[in-house]
Amino acid sequence: MSECVFCLIVAGAAPAHRVFEDDTVCAFLDIRPIARGHTLVIPKSHATDLSGLDAETGAELFRVGHRIARAVQGPAFAADGANLLINDGKAAFQTVGHVHLHVLPRTHGDKFRFASGLVLRRSHEPERVAAAIRSGLAALDTAATDPDTDTG
Amino acid sequence: MSECVFCLIVAGAAPAHRVFEDDTVCAFLDIRPIARGHTLVIPKSHATDLSGLDAETGAELFRVGHRIARAVQGPAFAADGANLLINDGKAAFQTVGHVHLHVLPRTHGDKFRFASGLVLRRSHEPERVAAAIRSGLAALDTAATDPDTDTG
Ligand SMILES: [Zn+2]
Ligand SMILES: [Zn+2]
Repeated sequence: MSECVFCLIVAGAAPAHRVFEDDTVCAFLDIRPIARGHTLVIPKSHATDLSGLDAETGAELFRVGHRIARAVQGPAFAADGANLLINDGKAAFQTVGHVHLHVLPRTHGDKFRFASGLVLRRSHEPERVAAAIRSGLAALDTAATDPDTDTG
Repeated sequence: MSECVFCLIVAGAAPAHRVFEDDTVCAFLDIRPIARGHTLVIPKSHATDLSGLDAETGAELFRVGHRIARAVQGPAFAADGANLLINDGKAAFQTVGHVHLHVLPRTHGDKFRFASGLVLRRSHEPERVAAAIRSGLAALDTAATDPDTDTG
């Protein structure tokens, strides 16, 4: 356990800019973001890959990722879109051996930069970025457009 | 509805190589695969993007995508990894206005081809590919390594 950096983050033994946490999953900013607000959602209980992740933990991972994708597209963060991505296995570019769902806020015009991979993987103002995502999540809790409470 | 190609597939009014279906979601081969076995999982009820998708339908979408990702890494299909991806919004490269989760089987050595985007988007033997994925899913139902039934 102590050798898994994501388990250390869950335990509070390694630093992270958290944006959300519940009993099952934890979400925090990627320390090498490829987009502003690049967030990772992980199961709190260690699972190396999807073959070791139980279905209900996976469903909760996605519920939270879905919610963050909606939050970053709200007024508090104002992204134009988002990618949700899991790389499962080294052949699929998984680099940390603890399942993680990437949530990548996107903006119109970032296409080439994103596609080319010519990105600066350095975090800018992570405290402020994390706060904006948390604001977006809080806004969802009360928004009339939340599909959980309004199917219109 | 009739102008959404994915709604037409759900209704059986447009052809698709299906690999799985339940009350909530439907999974079929992408007609322009960027990898062998490239599968899309969609909600049966139309939702343009994640802001219009209810949380529980999203959770089921992911449960099925998770299962397909595991299936293609089993003996019937033998991928080495998989990417699960949702592009939410045009800024994130969403091209069809009906939510879809990509499941991309990966193999060691395909990295450059995949990363470069120099891919042949043409389906090879889709019937055979779909059958292999369905076999993989069936194998999961009985596998002793299924994390739903065996936590070891
Ligand atoms: Zn871990
Ligand atoms: Zn549709």
